[in-house]
Amino acid sequence: MKIFQKEISLTPQRRGFNLITQEIVKKIPEISEIEAGIATIFIKHTSASLTINENADPDVRIDLETLFNRNFPERLPEYRHTFEGSDDMPAHAKATAIGQSLTIPITNGRLNMGTWQGIYLCEHRNHAHSRQIVVTILGQ
Amino acid sequence: MKIFQKEISLTPQRRGFNLITQEIVKKIPEISEIEAGIATIFIKHTSASLTINENADPDVRIDLETLFNRNFPERLPEYRHTFEGSDDMPAHAKATAIGQSLTIPITNGRLNMGTWQGIYLCEHRNHAHSRQIVVTILGQ
Amino acid sequence: MKIFQKEISLTPQRRGFNLITQEIVKKIPEISEIEAGIATIFIKHTSASLTINENADPDVRIDLETLFNRNFPERLPEYRHTFEGSDDMPAHAKATAIGQSLTIPITNGRLNMGTWQGIYLCEHRNHAHSRQIVVTILGQ
Repeated sequence: MKIFQKEISLTPQRRGFNLITQEIVKKIPEISEIEAGIATIFIKHTSASLTINENADPDVRIDLETLFNRNFPERLPEYRHTFEGSDDMPAHAKATAIGQSLTIPITNGRLNMGTWQGIYLCEHRNHAHSRQIVVTILGQ
Repeated sequence: MKIFQKEISLTPQRRGFNLITQEIVKKIPEISEIEAGIATIFIKHTSASLTINENADPDVRIDLETLFNRNFPERLPEYRHTFEGSDDMPAHAKATAIGQSLTIPITNGRLNMGTWQGIYLCEHRNHAHSRQIVVTILGQ
Repeated sequence: MKIFQKEISLTPQRRGFNLITQEIVKKIPEISEIEAGIATIFIKHTSASLTINENADPDVRIDLETLFNRNFPERLPEYRHTFEGSDDMPAHAKATAIGQSLTIPITNGRLNMGTWQGIYLCEHRNHAHSRQIVVTILGQ
């Protein structure tokens, strides 16, 4: 059994749903040594999240932003946590709704995702810096 | 440490929340060899998802469909990704809200879920074919 | 490769989002033996869930409860699963929206979370007893 672990600073992204499959794959060449296993990816923040969704039509990413903004709106009168800006509390809620970690199978040295799947960095703040992720690979 | 990995084609399901615990358990008899470990289950699609919820009253599954349709409705005027049908964009959003993977503990050769927990295939398209999942088991 | 697995009864919590990082960390001292690996935490219930979010301002936890109550309200006329109380069906839906498991990297003997991240028990029922979780640690 092999294990690799690496902390990566991602390129900063604009608010919304951003495809980062290639950025991640390039930084974990160790995957090629794994015949069968898993890659877990964890984001160390509470106002950004990780998901997997369609890697083709960029309109999917725009519509996801529309829908998650609709379900977690800014400036609700009930909000108490408002001192970091109107985008902050919805960002925390989106992070919990979408999730902090991904677990992706590795098969024959590659991430075994579907043809239309890509890894997204979901950036929920208006003006974010680089986000840190930890990739842990387990397999043989 | 042992590792097993298997790609499985699931029986096609109707749109909604479908209990598939038995279908999965029957296809991974290797779990019986694991005293302590984890099973990760990954779905290779962007318009279906996996969750764990109540395995008893089927009304829970109907009400889940009601609630997720309410939060991710069809035919919003803002949608841009519409060419694959009115069920498609909500399907992508539900997939991100619910998630692509499950991680379940294995204890003494069995999935260590709660008494009332079952594995669901959440089918978000109106007319779907078979869905592919990858099960990876790690343990000893 | 090492593996530890432990089932833990959590202190009962009130309905809402509750920070339980310290309760969990105290019960898994085995983490200190892991240089690189993962901790997976699984909750064995269908009306409570686990997430990671802000560990500082308690108002974040109050606003999360506001937002998830807004998206998964009680007493919708469409509900069919109502016999366990008006808080029950929204509890199931929140559990699926938030998720049953966490996967957190372990680095140099500690959970490798961000500075502002904490582990939450999301209790969705009005009057809950102790909740059971299973922690599985894999690493070397």
